[in-house]
Amino acid sequence: MGKTTGQAVTVIEWVGDAATGVLRLLDQTRLPAETVYLDCDSTEALYDAIGRLVVRGAPAIGVAAAYGMVLAAAEALDVAGRDARAFMGALRAKGAYLKRSRPTAVNLMWAVDRVLDALPPGAPARTAERILSEARAIHREDIAMCRAIGDRAAELICRCSGVLTHCNAGALATAGIGTATAGMYLAHAAGHAFCVYCDETRPLLQGSRLTAWELARAGINAVVITDNMAAQVMREGRVQMVITGADRIAANGDVANKIGTYGLAILAARHQIPFYVAAPTSTFDLSIATGDAIPIEQRGAEEITEGFGRRTAPDGIAVYAPAFDVTPAELITAIVTDRGIIQPVTAATVRTLLAPR
Amino acid sequence: MGKTTGQAVTVIEWVGDAATGVLRLLDQTRLPAETVYLDCDSTEALYDAIGRLVVRGAPAIGVAAAYGMVLAAAEALDVAGRDARAFMGALRAKGAYLKRSRPTAVNLMWAVDRVLDALPPGAPARTAERILSEARAIHREDIAMCRAIGDRAAELICRCSGVLTHCNAGALATAGIGTATAGMYLAHAAGHAFCVYCDETRPLLQGSRLTAWELARAGINAVVITDNMAAQVMREGRVQMVITGADRIAANGDVANKIGTYGLAILAARHQIPFYVAAPTSTFDLSIATGDAIPIEQRGAEEITEGFGRRTAPDGIAVYAPAFDVTPAELITAIVTDRGIIQPVTAATVRTLLAPR
Repeated sequence: MGKTTGQAVTVIEWVGDAATGVLRLLDQTRLPAETVYLDCDSTEALYDAIGRLVVRGAPAIGVAAAYGMVLAAAEALDVAGRDARAFMGALRAKGAYLKRSRPTAVNLMWAVDRVLDALPPGAPARTAERILSEARAIHREDIAMCRAIGDRAAELICRCSGVLTHCNAGALATAGIGTATAGMYLAHAAGHAFCVYCDETRPLLQGSRLTAWELARAGINAVVITDNMAAQVMREGRVQMVITGADRIAANGDVANKIGTYGLAILAARHQIPFYVAAPTSTFDLSIATGDAIPIEQRGAEEITEGFGRRTAPDGIAVYAPAFDVTPAELITAIVTDRGIIQPVTAATVRTLLAPR
Repeated sequence: MGKTTGQAVTVIEWVGDAATGVLRLLDQTRLPAETVYLDCDSTEALYDAIGRLVVRGAPAIGVAAAYGMVLAAAEALDVAGRDARAFMGALRAKGAYLKRSRPTAVNLMWAVDRVLDALPPGAPARTAERILSEARAIHREDIAMCRAIGDRAAELICRCSGVLTHCNAGALATAGIGTATAGMYLAHAAGHAFCVYCDETRPLLQGSRLTAWELARAGINAVVITDNMAAQVMREGRVQMVITGADRIAANGDVANKIGTYGLAILAARHQIPFYVAAPTSTFDLSIATGDAIPIEQRGAEEITEGFGRRTAPDGIAVYAPAFDVTPAELITAIVTDRGIIQPVTAATVRTLLAPR
């Protein structure tokens, strides 16, 4: 906090040219204690960085993987030389390797395939430059997506003196100004004064470690609370809206997101506080009719019993640890997307917004 | 866990006779890592133990303070000798000293005054024995209070395969089988098989550190969850009731309890799960008409920002940290007391149950 007040943090940056450049990543595992950047100069280094959550959040991982393919091109050239067929084989193998760094992040697969699909057939000479150009396009699009969400969400935030959010759907999870946080950055830049209550978000504390950090760093008034304080904060009239991100959205508008989101939506409804979800249109999965079909991942017990380096539960105790929950569309006031706002949230309004244009 | 399966844990015990005995306390600051007892052989040692939360929970503190006055009698005899007036002055000073160990625990004041009021005027010779007798009476009454709550709550628990609780209103907070936990111990003893979901209860983790520990030790199937998982646990049909303790209950039945209780009650109502409060009649404060008049204590920021022994939020970040919240009577299915069950919870039903008999 301090030096760079007023700016969103840089999460991902390509430094240098296509042949000799490196991918610079903010090391999110060191936050909030230290702001350290990690330069990845090989696909191995990036594979490790994605796996260790140095970079996290589906949009950010996608952008990082696209740049990773620039590194892959240089490595493929070393291995295969100027033989076009051998070069492309080596490049695709590097892409398949990067895709395995986090098998469930769909943006990762998508980004690797997109840069490969963008290559013309023929000589490998200028491949790294072409990939860098496509990676920069993906990067720009991610920034634009955040901005498009933010333009719409900022209007909502400018009506409030207090906002509550959960987990980190922030700049740290994207290449831009985040999804749930995008409207906060733009409302702040427009001079609106407001307070953001950040649920700490157990077990992994993305709210206190990441969201509070990035907002405070930008000069936004962030206040950390434990997850179980949200109802009291609402009851005291401290917040006039809740906004969260989404991991996956079903065709009927049911939203899978970080565990605790569903409970928050119930609390918001009880206090007649609007509950918004901010997400790019790419987060919708129209192959899934309702949230009931979204599987709920279970996490390891030790994230709860020894979350922060010391054991805080009895040895051998049973733990139940769902990582996500599903908020039914009926509890969601609106979904703010890069293409527009879905309100009310129904299968019909989702279909209309997502229809090809 | 293991060795003493089937038994509630001993929290407080007087060991020896009135003249040379010691007060043995389970050191709750060492839980769940270690089960260590601390022998207090002086009022200074007890003052320190209460202040450090070696013993905690209003009923348990009251019982400990009563026994502490046995130690005070021996010390007063050393200071004042056989002069009755000097002895009583010294004894009262020791009592005043113990009362200051935790100024807000009303049972502490009550217990010290009760043992002093029970003393006949005259020679100090058998004072320690008389105080020990009164302290044992307070101890027995606390055990009986827990048992009376438990007899009623066990019937409710025997209808459920899953129960959810928050914080620690357990054996560790009383001299007996606890308040919210009393029915669990008795239902378990009666052979009923069920599961208790224990909210970890941030920031101080009384649920994972204490409740899960004492239930598992007694052979009850305890499952730790983070506070923000409660809604999902309810949605999945894993619990058929919620039961918590209370810190103070207003004349209309509004309940002040550990932060998070109010939110839980809203979640339970949404899922049509009964929400019970277990508390002795001494927890009612009829001088307070409604919960709105109960002040909400704010705790220190560091309990949230460095709750796990290492900093998990940015330096200098703002924190909001209410320690309690108030659950309105309308969200409470019933209050289970040592004198009977209050249901529905209204000013009239509270008045009727608490009327002198």
